[in-house]
Amino acid sequence: MQIAERMQGVSGSAIRELFKLLGDPAIISFGGGNPSKACFPKEVIREITDELLRDKADILLQYGATEGYMPLRRAYLDYILPGNGLHGELDNVLALTGSMQGLDLLCKAVINPGDVVLVEEPSFLGALQTFHVAQAKLVTVPIHTDGIHADELEEVVKKYHPVMFYCIPTFQNPSGYVTGAATRKRIAELAAEYNMLVIEDDPYASLRFTGEKVPTIKSFDTSDNVIVLTSFSKTISPGLRVALCFGNKDLIRKMTIAKQGSDTHSPNLNQAIVAEFINRGYMDKHIEFISGVYAKSANCMIEAMDKYFPEWVRYERPVGGLFIWCTLPEGWEADKLFRRAVERKVAFVPGEPFHTTPGAGKNTFRLNFSAEPEERIVEGIKRLGDLIREMKAEM
Amino acid sequence: MQIAERMQGVSGSAIRELFKLLGDPAIISFGGGNPSKACFPKEVIREITDELLRDKADILLQYGATEGYMPLRRAYLDYILPGNGLHGELDNVLALTGSMQGLDLLCKAVINPGDVVLVEEPSFLGALQTFHVAQAKLVTVPIHTDGIHADELEEVVKKYHPVMFYCIPTFQNPSGYVTGAATRKRIAELAAEYNMLVIEDDPYASLRFTGEKVPTIKSFDTSDNVIVLTSFSKTISPGLRVALCFGNKDLIRKMTIAKQGSDTHSPNLNQAIVAEFINRGYMDKHIEFISGVYAKSANCMIEAMDKYFPEWVRYERPVGGLFIWCTLPEGWEADKLFRRAVERKVAFVPGEPFHTTPGAGKNTFRLNFSAEPEERIVEGIKRLGDLIREMKAEM
Repeated sequence: MQIAERMQGVSGSAIRELFKLLGDPAIISFGGGNPSKACFPKEVIREITDELLRDKADILLQYGATEGYMPLRRAYLDYILPGNGLHGELDNVLALTGSMQGLDLLCKAVINPGDVVLVEEPSFLGALQTFHVAQAKLVTVPIHTDGIHADELEEVVKKYHPVMFYCIPTFQNPSGYVTGAATRKRIAELAAEYNMLVIEDDPYASLRFTGEKVPTIKSFDTSDNVIVLTSFSKTISPGLRVALCFGNKDLIRKMTIAKQGSDTHSPNLNQAIVAEFINRGYMDKHIEFISGVYAKSANCMIEAMDKYFPEWVRYERPVGGLFIWCTLPEGWEADKLFRRAVERKVAFVPGEPFHTTPGAGKNTFRLNFSAEPEERIVEGIKRLGDLIREMKAEM
Repeated sequence: MQIAERMQGVSGSAIRELFKLLGDPAIISFGGGNPSKACFPKEVIREITDELLRDKADILLQYGATEGYMPLRRAYLDYILPGNGLHGELDNVLALTGSMQGLDLLCKAVINPGDVVLVEEPSFLGALQTFHVAQAKLVTVPIHTDGIHADELEEVVKKYHPVMFYCIPTFQNPSGYVTGAATRKRIAELAAEYNMLVIEDDPYASLRFTGEKVPTIKSFDTSDNVIVLTSFSKTISPGLRVALCFGNKDLIRKMTIAKQGSDTHSPNLNQAIVAEFINRGYMDKHIEFISGVYAKSANCMIEAMDKYFPEWVRYERPVGGLFIWCTLPEGWEADKLFRRAVERKVAFVPGEPFHTTPGAGKNTFRLNFSAEPEERIVEGIKRLGDLIREMKAEM
């Protein structure tokens, strides 16, 4: 049986494979990016869903528009985007079956095999996989504790003229780092100067524990070259698979055509649940609630790390998002640590798959603090810390 | 802004564009392939959904497995497939966000630009669009009132060695025709002889009004080269976007990897609704009910056509599915008929976009009988018949 060239060497997401481990409830998992089940607005969703199926079943169970369920697109334009300083029209908006689909549709609409795509290093490995399947040539800009640096970005843009730049400016995955406002403005300028499409993937931005919101790259966009991906996976529910994107009308149109041939349209009921959740005014309060929960979990994990990890394991205190990025000394292999940690029923994600440069990031790993209760966070970090010390002693 | 080569000349689905017309409730629509809203099992879905969100919200609102929601995959293996003479294991099964996604994933997993894909002529235009975006080279085998003919198929397979053959053997879209058992067996043999992947798209098969079920192509498959797409869009609800595919384990694995980068996983709640619908034993009775409804609608439409259409408009009495395929005399343009019909508030789909051969099918059109109540079917067919006679008189 023939396998397409684009699939050669694509072995599947390390994180998706990790999900299989999660079936064992004894495993303390800092892998994945799962929201806490305590943060799902279960009762509200149940109530909304029942009303929707009582009042709008004829519409919701029928085929829908590829562009999306109209009340969701309007709620996005009327409430979500203005909250981020953004304004637009219906033709700027496309509903997605999860924001990963946005990346897939952007690749379909824009990328020819061999085109250069610029990514942060490290970056979200699901996105890297999508770009690999699109047969893009990846180049990277390093991410630092204060986000990406404008001079490094400009250098790589000048050198490689990427067709698009994929970034997660706020509470980046996997690093948790935030790119500052001045750099964001410069990204928008570079998008105009080099006619480069910028994908601003923004699933974590509302999960802020402390400090001031940073303006979106899109809010500095004067050339209509920035497209925003907005996910409800971290704020309402990932299992519903509801996201939206916002950007250039011509591009949205091409993505819509690509979506016709991908899943025809996103499920109506799911879009309607999110639309109602927004329209009934639950969003702000819910985000305040879950940000508080995650801030507490992050704090718990950091305190445990400060206590149980050797001081030569480097990490930053997160100000939002879901992740803590850890760096072991040069020469360490997080892969080995991972295999031994799983034996002790603790899981995380080794950092190498988040990297594009061959061999980079072997000594890094990502911890997620949102999926486990506090006592298991402390226990898991203790086991990890003990293991790291043991492995050091064996060296 | 760059647009990818694969999107050049792809203008979007004519049917999807038609959906915009459906916003006007005065339009009698024989376009689309919408199930009747009277056929949605609304109360059962509402009841199931409420129980699922009461009992399983923690699981259903969380991220799920790319492979699909386990109870749905099991229900498919235990109830749906055996009902079609098919048996397999979990690794043969992948859940899809609508069966269109199956085509997209198959293209990603198998097709390189320039590869030959064989399709029936006419064929489902959504599939044709997906193959165009995959930059496949399309070749065709004609479909007749008794389905495709084995000798014609073999000739084109021998000549072009297609990588895959896409077909809808039962109540084909757009023709409504059924390919016979002997030809199906021959298709499976050709798949083995020429190492050709066969996509057996089967969304309409259970909507049979009369006559005996024909065995699936897959049931004759000895080389594991046939992959089945099973949709619940026509039997339960299209808005839920739940489908599954069944086939070769290696191929399913590649499709799963492609799906990781497409929408990560299909929405859990939607999969769970369908799984419960099957597991609670509603399926057979519901299919019996809707087949009866559609048989009545089809009969109503055929009787109106017999009465109001000139005898030189050709069509077959459907034995299942959702469509009646019409052929006007040579030289007619169904496109013109369409534009004038819309002025009289009747819509259908002109046949040309279902064709691959340039210029073919201009004198054909597709009528759907499942979306309108009987009095509107009669009224719409009368208006169409009157219009056809008027246009004839103007020639």
